[in-house]
Amino acid sequence: MSKLLQDVVGELSKLPGIGRRTALRLALHMLRMEPESVGDMTRSIDRFRREVKHCAQCNNLSDERVCPICADRERDHATICVVEQVADVLSIENTHQYKGLYHVLGGVISPMQGIAPSDLKIDLLMDRVARGGVKEVILAISTSVEGETTLFYLLNRLRQYPEVKVTSIARGIGFGDELEYVDELTIAHALMNRRAVE
Amino acid sequence: MSKLLQDVVGELSKLPGIGRRTALRLALHMLRMEPESVGDMTRSIDRFRREVKHCAQCNNLSDERVCPICADRERDHATICVVEQVADVLSIENTHQYKGLYHVLGGVISPMQGIAPSDLKIDLLMDRVARGGVKEVILAISTSVEGETTLFYLLNRLRQYPEVKVTSIARGIGFGDELEYVDELTIAHALMNRRAVE
Repeated sequence: MSKLLQDVVGELSKLPGIGRRTALRLALHMLRMEPESVGDMTRSIDRFRREVKHCAQCNNLSDERVCPICADRERDHATICVVEQVADVLSIENTHQYKGLYHVLGGVISPMQGIAPSDLKIDLLMDRVARGGVKEVILAISTSVEGETTLFYLLNRLRQYPEVKVTSIARGIGFGDELEYVDELTIAHALMNRRAVE
Repeated sequence: MSKLLQDVVGELSKLPGIGRRTALRLALHMLRMEPESVGDMTRSIDRFRREVKHCAQCNNLSDERVCPICADRERDHATICVVEQVADVLSIENTHQYKGLYHVLGGVISPMQGIAPSDLKIDLLMDRVARGGVKEVILAISTSVEGETTLFYLLNRLRQYPEVKVTSIARGIGFGDELEYVDELTIAHALMNRRAVE
């Protein structure tokens, strides 16, 4: 087998969810692509890895020192939605329903994986709140054990700012989910938090 | 959303089987990789695309003018296995059962897709056979309509060399396949070509 092919298959199969068969398929596909298109792709990867920054305010990915969301004067700067990772910002932005700012923690507290609060951008969040002007912090963190730990840790730290309302995103049955297939914890929670029908 | 991230997601999602969600996941994973590892990966892709050649004899991928299989004196140069694509060579090599040479057509004849015999490396195969010394040509081509068309075209062209035995790989029930789930054509073929149990 060609050494060049072996190398590219070896490198591509280091990526998550890409095994040797998929890597081989991708490599052979690239042979059928124009050399310039392949060059465009690798250049965009290199530039992204080398040049992308984290927003100095919210830790979201950004091409500038401050991301376009934080720099947007039209958005509600009194509301901060705290999420675990960059992908969560994109998911919420895709709904086009949220007009506040974000704060990307960069993970959750996990003693098992050796992730302490100081490994996350929690102090940066506290600095933002301490500067004043924040009316609400929305915690949009996963319901895993680590997520809950992180949530309580944040609640505790935010308690020193009684003027700031701290909320958590609603848990319940997803639209389109069939009750039959939803886990019991979610159903129990959804029942407990039932709402009057108007 | 970061322009750099947008670019890389756009480029990666041009690859087959990679949608925007997977592309985003891959891009964010690359952020957690060492910059040098990402550089190694993009360099291996660029080198592969620019430098890989096709063997002048069998059309397999090769780093040299002639591939290591064709250059190997230990292999049986009197037997040529004709396959559609590079991946097929790798599949057969992985069995470690075949010691002859290969010939990669680069596709199958397909009037629907505008692929004529002249678009495939068929003349190169005929040159190899015409040079003499070939005792057997094994056709390992898929059983699609296009594959069968290609098979009959090759049979026809090879007929001018009556000293060359032309064979086709055996069709039948795969090891581990359950009869219940095998298509009828394969079962009918496997029944017709039944063998005495020794």
